[in-house]
Amino acid sequence: MSSIKDVAKHAGVSVATVSRVLNDKGYVSDNTREKVEHSIKELDYTPNEIARTLFNKQSKTIGLIVPDIMNPYFPELARAVEDTATKLGYNVILCNSDGNTEKEQRYLDVLLQKYVNGIIVSSNTLNVNQIEKLNIPVVSIDREISKGLPTIVVENKKGAMMATHFLKSKGCTRIAHIRGPHAIVNAEERYGGYQEVVGKETWFKESYIANGNYDMETSIEATLELLGLHPEIDGIFAANDIMAIGAIKAAYQLGKRVPEDIAIIGFDGISLSKATIPELTTIVQPIYELGETATTMLVQLMERQPIEETYRILDVKLVERHST
Amino acid sequence: MSSIKDVAKHAGVSVATVSRVLNDKGYVSDNTREKVEHSIKELDYTPNEIARTLFNKQSKTIGLIVPDIMNPYFPELARAVEDTATKLGYNVILCNSDGNTEKEQRYLDVLLQKYVNGIIVSSNTLNVNQIEKLNIPVVSIDREISKGLPTIVVENKKGAMMATHFLKSKGCTRIAHIRGPHAIVNAEERYGGYQEVVGKETWFKESYIANGNYDMETSIEATLELLGLHPEIDGIFAANDIMAIGAIKAAYQLGKRVPEDIAIIGFDGISLSKATIPELTTIVQPIYELGETATTMLVQLMERQPIEETYRILDVKLVERHST
Repeated sequence: MSSIKDVAKHAGVSVATVSRVLNDKGYVSDNTREKVEHSIKELDYTPNEIARTLFNKQSKTIGLIVPDIMNPYFPELARAVEDTATKLGYNVILCNSDGNTEKEQRYLDVLLQKYVNGIIVSSNTLNVNQIEKLNIPVVSIDREISKGLPTIVVENKKGAMMATHFLKSKGCTRIAHIRGPHAIVNAEERYGGYQEVVGKETWFKESYIANGNYDMETSIEATLELLGLHPEIDGIFAANDIMAIGAIKAAYQLGKRVPEDIAIIGFDGISLSKATIPELTTIVQPIYELGETATTMLVQLMERQPIEETYRILDVKLVERHST
Repeated sequence: MSSIKDVAKHAGVSVATVSRVLNDKGYVSDNTREKVEHSIKELDYTPNEIARTLFNKQSKTIGLIVPDIMNPYFPELARAVEDTATKLGYNVILCNSDGNTEKEQRYLDVLLQKYVNGIIVSSNTLNVNQIEKLNIPVVSIDREISKGLPTIVVENKKGAMMATHFLKSKGCTRIAHIRGPHAIVNAEERYGGYQEVVGKETWFKESYIANGNYDMETSIEATLELLGLHPEIDGIFAANDIMAIGAIKAAYQLGKRVPEDIAIIGFDGISLSKATIPELTTIVQPIYELGETATTMLVQLMERQPIEETYRILDVKLVERHST
């Protein structure tokens, strides 16, 4: 039986190079890869246990890094990634970074050590250098890192404009915004959409903009304060659904009726938005399609298939329910 | 510089054995382990890149397998596991099995291939043989696999009895139960608690028990059907919170007021139970403590520290809010 050394000798490369080809990790030129694969066939080489499992489709693995597993948006996205990956013969391992720079870098390192074949990441803070250093395919999802990287996002600004216009069309004349974290591109874009629609209205005040943290607790607090200071507010566009649900909760605590006294609209279209009372009007992202597209793109990159476009912006739609 | 071969020769064992010691994986007797560790020191052996990262605390990793990432209970549990693991110097990689036997086994295989040092699993279907074959520490959480395995669960039956008694104390005289999946031990225990409290009442009917799937959609359907067939029902104990939220939704759709026309109580105490309108009365599990205890126990097992008890049942408490 031939060994990895025999393969290396036959191909005229080092054992480390053969190992890189077997593990599909690190740089190997196409020419070298072909030589090694040829020698493997020629010598009928059977890789050892670990190399074999890495050969075996069953063991191919994608890493998914999300910033906040407590926001139902990310479990839904993870679900789509997992469904798609399973169909394509890949497993998914998930890491929750809390949007924390150190944790993000640490999980990238962990995933590399664990020999994942590619990574999908939704990050607040990673930069293009950190990604390029990884030397394996990475697709950025929901949160853009750099225009140059494979990315799937949605029409954030357009969606925010739709939401704000819709509140106006419902007769709201004092529209507030619960904003997502300042460092996150999609939160900035949604804020920009709101600004564009109402920023020049005569009634507009900077103090109609409250800071949320894309979670329910901060949104409840922000809304309580907002409505305490400005009881005239009759419409709220929250930058994501979980904050909109918090806003409904806060309005209810203050004895305000939704939508009679105040109309509330969210962004995301998580399943939970259908379960609130009243059901939430929201800008629906194609969450499942987002996960599916990112996974398919990543697998194409990993398997060196041709790809037409590596930067995709998916459309959003307004779904009217009972909170507006 | 000495190699792994030198260490093996010095210790009088095979290279594979040294590798098992370095990777902390597979069976090695204490005696052999000591010999190898002694030789490593004696020869001042520095393991290669991979072995070194496995030595390095930073790269130590725990696998967590959950059955349904879409149920907010599991992200909350994952969050607690991750917090605790981070404090103890471990990373966490998460797998979502959909409660599917094949996926569970596949993810166990994946985690082993990826050299995790231990696994926390919440499983519907794994058996003790599958777990023992893994040859690394495993802690079972929320769902018991076998009394013989390290396990952290809560007082399911007691909590269910508390919930049902509470509905009675609130004046409910026709109490229904939305049951969790039949195969899951904690669902059976919660069902058992309900049965014990009301199963012998003169008004009791088997048809007051509806089957849910621990998710919101099936619970909405089940509750609509239940209340359609039995409009006299004035109390519902749902076997988890997400189903209780579905039940509130269904009651609202039928024009029933909660709690005036029908009182609803859940089980779990997920964050979301505080966000519903009305807020949900529920049996609160110490979710964070559950994750924390399981992680601490797993790390103790991995690091061969003495443990007093490997089977722990945590207590639950009733938190009254506005749905009853």
